[in-house]
Amino acid sequence: MVEPPSLEKLVQEFASLPGIGKKTARRLAYFVLTRPRERAEALSNTIVEACDKVKRCSQCHSFAEEDPCPICKAREGSRSICVVEKFSDILPFENAGIYHGLYFVLGGVLSPLDGVGPETLHIPQLIQRIQTEKIEEVIFALGSSPEADSTILLIDKLLAGVPVKRSSLARGIPMGSELEYIDEVTVLRAFESRTGI
Amino acid sequence: MVEPPSLEKLVQEFASLPGIGKKTARRLAYFVLTRPRERAEALSNTIVEACDKVKRCSQCHSFAEEDPCPICKAREGSRSICVVEKFSDILPFENAGIYHGLYFVLGGVLSPLDGVGPETLHIPQLIQRIQTEKIEEVIFALGSSPEADSTILLIDKLLAGVPVKRSSLARGIPMGSELEYIDEVTVLRAFESRTGI
Ligand SMILES: [Zn+2]
Ligand SMILES: [Zn+2]
Repeated sequence: MVEPPSLEKLVQEFASLPGIGKKTARRLAYFVLTRPRERAEALSNTIVEACDKVKRCSQCHSFAEEDPCPICKAREGSRSICVVEKFSDILPFENAGIYHGLYFVLGGVLSPLDGVGPETLHIPQLIQRIQTEKIEEVIFALGSSPEADSTILLIDKLLAGVPVKRSSLARGIPMGSELEYIDEVTVLRAFESRTGI
Repeated sequence: MVEPPSLEKLVQEFASLPGIGKKTARRLAYFVLTRPRERAEALSNTIVEACDKVKRCSQCHSFAEEDPCPICKAREGSRSICVVEKFSDILPFENAGIYHGLYFVLGGVLSPLDGVGPETLHIPQLIQRIQTEKIEEVIFALGSSPEADSTILLIDKLLAGVPVKRSSLARGIPMGSELEYIDEVTVLRAFESRTGI
């Protein structure tokens, strides 16, 4: 009962964000109150503005202010589609400038324990898009986990009979890392899929 | 240029908060966009509402919706004052229920390297309050750091000739830690064995 109610409410709001505990939430709330009021208004307005403007692209489920999103629009007619778990997974590809095809945001990977089944993900839309846009290659960029593997397996099954090449990001040792510090499963995978020189 | 502008702006706003890096800011922004709009509005409104309602108590500089704050009002006439660095440092005392006197939020500790000199803190107001309210004991609860020590030393000097007992939390507090994050028992012990200066 020391914290004024409106401050306590702000602490609770911050604490409802992922990875923000009560103490961090308190630090953020105090900081917001300490800054000039304009900064708080800017934060407040930006939150609502982003919610108003940002939608999901109906074709790839990326966050975008237009529908279709700039990438779907600019790369219409591309024959390859890169399947990612979430929107932010697109960023490293675009930053590296290595890929110029389409993307598709699944919205997650299968995780029965967390209640994420095939119906929660955008799998039917993906299958449909692959067929209607005559996609020639599907590249799965889902990270490496048993859940990602079973998601790829399911989509692969659903694509039975569809003439589309399927690939998945290579599993191996990340650049610039010392072998000593890599976990055994990664080393095992990298060994199994070792490539000729 | 993959992120829509309004989303990028939101990421930047979150990244301007202390301890929130670009990646965490992105995660928060995406989360806010994924939740129902009402939740974003609630967060947005709570920020502005807290800024509107929460002020600084003119007597102790605590965050409060009224002036004087509930503690200054309820404990008027108390003869002891507990000097803390920031408002949140009051919480462990009140949660432990060990202290029933007044508080005074200094607003920091002396830190010449960070440009925090005596004039940045509320030291003159503290000295004045001690004299006008006939305070009999000043308890310094400033955590343990060289900066805290020199702050106590300065205030002690300024109080030369003022008939007031001065004590400081016992060194039960680990070095280099912020009072806010100390458990109540430790605070209780340190409070009980506070020592004269
Ligand atoms: Zn799109
Ligand atoms: Zn007060």
